[in-house]
Amino acid sequence: MKLAISLGDLNGIGLEIALRSHEEIAQWCEPVYCIDPTMLAWGAALLGLDVPESLQTCPCGDVFDITPGRATKASGKASYASFLKALSLVQENKADALVTLPIHKEAWHKAGMLYKGHTDALAGLLKEDAMMMLGCETLFVGLFTHHIPLKNVAKQIKKKPLIGFLIRFWEALHVKPIGVLGLNPHAGDGGVIGKEERVIAKAIAAANKAIGEEVFMGPLVPDAAFTPQKLAQFSHLVCLYHDQGLTPLKALFFEESINVSLGLSVVRTSVDHGTAYDIAYKGMNPSCKSFLNATKSAITLAEKRRNFT
Amino acid sequence: MKLAISLGDLNGIGLEIALRSHEEIAQWCEPVYCIDPTMLAWGAALLGLDVPESLQTCPCGDVFDITPGRATKASGKASYASFLKALSLVQENKADALVTLPIHKEAWHKAGMLYKGHTDALAGLLKEDAMMMLGCETLFVGLFTHHIPLKNVAKQIKKKPLIGFLIRFWEALHVKPIGVLGLNPHAGDGGVIGKEERVIAKAIAAANKAIGEEVFMGPLVPDAAFTPQKLAQFSHLVCLYHDQGLTPLKALFFEESINVSLGLSVVRTSVDHGTAYDIAYKGMNPSCKSFLNATKSAITLAEKRRNFT
Repeated sequence: MKLAISLGDLNGIGLEIALRSHEEIAQWCEPVYCIDPTMLAWGAALLGLDVPESLQTCPCGDVFDITPGRATKASGKASYASFLKALSLVQENKADALVTLPIHKEAWHKAGMLYKGHTDALAGLLKEDAMMMLGCETLFVGLFTHHIPLKNVAKQIKKKPLIGFLIRFWEALHVKPIGVLGLNPHAGDGGVIGKEERVIAKAIAAANKAIGEEVFMGPLVPDAAFTPQKLAQFSHLVCLYHDQGLTPLKALFFEESINVSLGLSVVRTSVDHGTAYDIAYKGMNPSCKSFLNATKSAITLAEKRRNFT
Repeated sequence: MKLAISLGDLNGIGLEIALRSHEEIAQWCEPVYCIDPTMLAWGAALLGLDVPESLQTCPCGDVFDITPGRATKASGKASYASFLKALSLVQENKADALVTLPIHKEAWHKAGMLYKGHTDALAGLLKEDAMMMLGCETLFVGLFTHHIPLKNVAKQIKKKPLIGFLIRFWEALHVKPIGVLGLNPHAGDGGVIGKEERVIAKAIAAANKAIGEEVFMGPLVPDAAFTPQKLAQFSHLVCLYHDQGLTPLKALFFEESINVSLGLSVVRTSVDHGTAYDIAYKGMNPSCKSFLNATKSAITLAEKRRNFT
């Protein structure tokens, strides 16, 4: 299993995380780091870390001055080049999955990139619509809607798109059971506090029928869906809006969470944190948990894709 | 400090929790249990527990057959009588605060009660509007809106009512800082994902001005508000809708949470669980954490009321 890893913004913590995680990751797969070798050597020297001999790079991007903690045009350009190179490795079947380290939006903007971030760039470059899933081994949360105002969420709860989402979600994951949350307090309390749960229940039934198995269960009472009892039952939940899923997820698994783009032609996982400019190159030993988990999940998802297609 | 305790539905777990917690609670305050002495003796015998000699009762309600795990007219009637008696003790200054054990809605309905639960009954009997707060010592969450459909939440975010809520919330608690959450993903991301955060920011500023201190902070990014870093900063959060607060709260503090009615003429706390009919009188040792915490908070809030009024 070969993973293409984009280093993200070299003025941030990405390179340190990659170097500190390499030995562990190399036991699970063959990672290829998309970075110019001069930049790698210089960054490692700045960090006071050795570059492991076994570390395999795929050169890309310009050589530039690393300026820790600053969003620069050069760091934006290089991080975009690293991302493009890693993506192309997967597209050309030279790697099985893409794992991205964090870029900085402002640096991309300074470098003239029109995309706001990885997810946006993937949608633009691949002309495909990704499903967002975040979480860790204990719990992954898929988001039916994401970056829209709360007031617009209820009108998005329509049967057809929800059925489509559930089926695609299942196809990308092949796990069961998957819980689907209700929209309203107490999942509507039998229709007394909102009626969207009827639509959700119908979509669940239709998706299960199309799949031919009882994969999806719900609508679950949202405020009980993340309790220990439910976590023992479900490793995957479908949430209807951004904060319904991410607020409890981050409350429970802050450092461990990763970000997965599902339903694309390439398998892609990412850390669920930013460049952390404030602690970059300061010897503050940033947590590698999210990156290690992103790598593990990329392997799992790439294996599933092999087995089910 | 004297606490009036209503036993809730005697076919549920309330009596067992009260008996098992009594010794600990009696070290902190003087509890008065609103229950008929015959029922107490009978219930304790059914549970195989002794009634501590020091246990003080305030007789109320009829004698009836305890039928574990069933919502009956008689259990509904008795639980309402216990609630009314405990409330009256506080109103008549014979107790400092009211702590309620869980009633069963269906039993109240069978007994002909028109109120849906304690909160509804308090509003009806006292003609006062309670603010709902749930949580535990580490984190309490106040709810600006509660049992309304999600689609109606955004239109409730208006400056005047929110200012009023914040000021009342502060008056009931006298703690600071208190975090106030945004409504939208990323707290609107500067207006890109919804504009309600402007209203929230103005309400925070106005409330702080009226109080004369920087009590409220925000609008906080909702999905980051329950992370370890934020919990270290805030012991109290104001959430704008039911699931925004209760989903992460129950994820983090499932067994420990309690329910507090703020802003009433009586101090009232409650356990945050139901009658648990399925385990009542079965020797399954239900958790007393929520009741112990409800008692502690009742004491704290009653003390604050003494000091600040």
